[in-house]
Amino acid sequence: MAVNSPLPVAADLKPVAGIELGYAEAGIKKPGRKDVLVMKLADTATVAGVFTKNRFCAAPVQISKANLAAGAKIRALVVNTGNANAGTGDEGLARARQTCEALAQELGCAPEQILPFSTGVILEPLPVQKIVAALPAAIQNLKADNWFNAAEAIMTTDTQPKAASRTVSIGGHSVTMTGISKGAGMIKPNMATMLGYLAFDAKVAQPVLDELVRHAADHSFNSITIDGDTSTNDSFILMATGAGTLEITSLEQPEYAALRDAVTELSRTLAQMIIRDGEGATKFMTITVEEGKDVEECRKIAYSIAHSPLVKTAFFASDPNLGRILAAIGYAGVDDLDVTKLNLYLDDVWVAKNGGRNPDYKEEDGQRVMKQSEITIRVKLARGAATATVWTCDLSHDYVSINADYRS
Amino acid sequence: MAVNSPLPVAADLKPVAGIELGYAEAGIKKPGRKDVLVMKLADTATVAGVFTKNRFCAAPVQISKANLAAGAKIRALVVNTGNANAGTGDEGLARARQTCEALAQELGCAPEQILPFSTGVILEPLPVQKIVAALPAAIQNLKADNWFNAAEAIMTTDTQPKAASRTVSIGGHSVTMTGISKGAGMIKPNMATMLGYLAFDAKVAQPVLDELVRHAADHSFNSITIDGDTSTNDSFILMATGAGTLEITSLEQPEYAALRDAVTELSRTLAQMIIRDGEGATKFMTITVEEGKDVEECRKIAYSIAHSPLVKTAFFASDPNLGRILAAIGYAGVDDLDVTKLNLYLDDVWVAKNGGRNPDYKEEDGQRVMKQSEITIRVKLARGAATATVWTCDLSHDYVSINADYRS
Repeated sequence: MAVNSPLPVAADLKPVAGIELGYAEAGIKKPGRKDVLVMKLADTATVAGVFTKNRFCAAPVQISKANLAAGAKIRALVVNTGNANAGTGDEGLARARQTCEALAQELGCAPEQILPFSTGVILEPLPVQKIVAALPAAIQNLKADNWFNAAEAIMTTDTQPKAASRTVSIGGHSVTMTGISKGAGMIKPNMATMLGYLAFDAKVAQPVLDELVRHAADHSFNSITIDGDTSTNDSFILMATGAGTLEITSLEQPEYAALRDAVTELSRTLAQMIIRDGEGATKFMTITVEEGKDVEECRKIAYSIAHSPLVKTAFFASDPNLGRILAAIGYAGVDDLDVTKLNLYLDDVWVAKNGGRNPDYKEEDGQRVMKQSEITIRVKLARGAATATVWTCDLSHDYVSINADYRS
Repeated sequence: MAVNSPLPVAADLKPVAGIELGYAEAGIKKPGRKDVLVMKLADTATVAGVFTKNRFCAAPVQISKANLAAGAKIRALVVNTGNANAGTGDEGLARARQTCEALAQELGCAPEQILPFSTGVILEPLPVQKIVAALPAAIQNLKADNWFNAAEAIMTTDTQPKAASRTVSIGGHSVTMTGISKGAGMIKPNMATMLGYLAFDAKVAQPVLDELVRHAADHSFNSITIDGDTSTNDSFILMATGAGTLEITSLEQPEYAALRDAVTELSRTLAQMIIRDGEGATKFMTITVEEGKDVEECRKIAYSIAHSPLVKTAFFASDPNLGRILAAIGYAGVDDLDVTKLNLYLDDVWVAKNGGRNPDYKEEDGQRVMKQSEITIRVKLARGAATATVWTCDLSHDYVSINADYRS
């Protein structure tokens, strides 16, 4: 039950020169579904990533971070679903390394040139033999136009694959970019979400790509939430394959801003796809907090609204019980907030004026907006010029059903 | 569907000398239910309270805080359900004052000697005329043994009244204490919950009572959560009627500790009754975090577990998907937490050892505990000697149903 989520069509997903994708059915949790993905990069590629800040960060996340930090030239990424390899201690690290070693041997590179990723249930041993056994099949079907299959291969409780492509012209160079993402629950990324991969065919110097991935993540995956649960496995990876004609060597280069904006827009689309397919989601909500002293307090208030179970259930019910939004603003932890200056809008409807009910507000106007499947909540704080936007979904019976049944 | 919640019996609730209670049916939201409560105190009484820290604190909370802060000698409390009088601006303050004025006139005291309270829907005008019209009926049935009716009169989505009594002997003096509480959703008190009232018949000096109410609240109402939504109306009030023989004039007096412990125990019982009757609750969960550096970090981790929708739905399903607890610990915001030293227990079952799955842990042991209706989650941080405990409940379909239907 995705909210106005356009299903990607295989034919609309553009191959990106310099990257090939292959999948396999390893039977990690269930037989007969794609659960292993290999992405192989050209020699010219640079790679940068941001990862979960969860202290229980998964074994593969620890290894991916270390390999990127060591400056290894990344040749391939490997992803498995069905098991998160988190909360698995030293044995988990050993099994993630074993996956990298097996793939490195197949591809003729060093294990440090592989980035491993896992998603699925936490606190259970990774069935590494199944993954290793499936690698040759994945390598055998490596293809440039496998993005749709790749999006399917990283799904867990997702109801649909998430992928999108863009072609942009930057400084006279055509740049093609394609990305995939997954995730429908345990979504409140704190660096990035589990999982997002975006490749494009420009050549980008490592320091530039490191900055770009942070910018794109902050304005996309780091601004979404479904249930406030920051995963142990969140990862967002940018891959500049270097196979195209655009080359960017510094942040000052005029083309950088255009590339940054295009990558950020595509990242945002991928991140919003996760919310639209949020577990049990029936509403897509944009929460914008304006006129704050700084971005941090705007984000605090936006997340407080986005995480309130009472706000989320009211939206599920299409019930304009909007006092719940005020309550969530009030406990957001902005201690010197003067609520008597605060204004609240639901799309075009002015609900609360100077901290109280707008005398002109009519219940039927609130009701009209609440019935929509896409709704913007806008809060004006009258404290400054900062703004932040967060995207989220409602809390429905199906969220409870999905998460009460996840392992069965 | 309360979790092992002993229904209070009217006959077990002891009158407290120096306080009388009366109720009325004002028809605030629906006809034919008790929705107004008046509590009248003896001249000898002292009163202290703690209130919500929500910036959108309700109009009656603002007035009650002001009257207590001004040192007014409190003669009566008045509570209405069906409307929170929050998010109502200046007009809300005027209507709360109008209620106080009407009751003061009936009782022959000043409006500043009244503490008003409201609970119910936010952002809607208080039907003050209905409340004022109902006051004479409430005054007419003022009685010392009306505690059961009082507990019923403050219910909203509660499925049962919450009340308890104790008689303790302190320094040769018999002290009788009775308390009532309400609340089932929008429960993550940050000072106290909406609503708790506890009276006892000792005579207690104001500075002592001010300290006592903070201590009791911190160890009871400030350690519970249902949905993380801090209400606009939380209030917890201690009333020392002064009608008994025990008199406490300073914190150093030897009897103070005994009184503090008795009041705190009764407060905790009342607070836990709220969790046991949490909206849709099927499980009562005690979350204890031990071996922390300080209480604050223990509380952070305990609340992170208690608020995780994924943890709460797993408990609803009796599914030992306990990696979700590790994830919630990991994102609690304790940045220097060394997860490789962490241990996790579910009742007597050792689940995670040194941050990974305990090799001796068996799924069937976890399953056995998860099937219980009362479960203790114990986390050991191996960082210090601090401890904190938080009480919460699971997240079920009924929570969604209740809050999607609340206003209809």
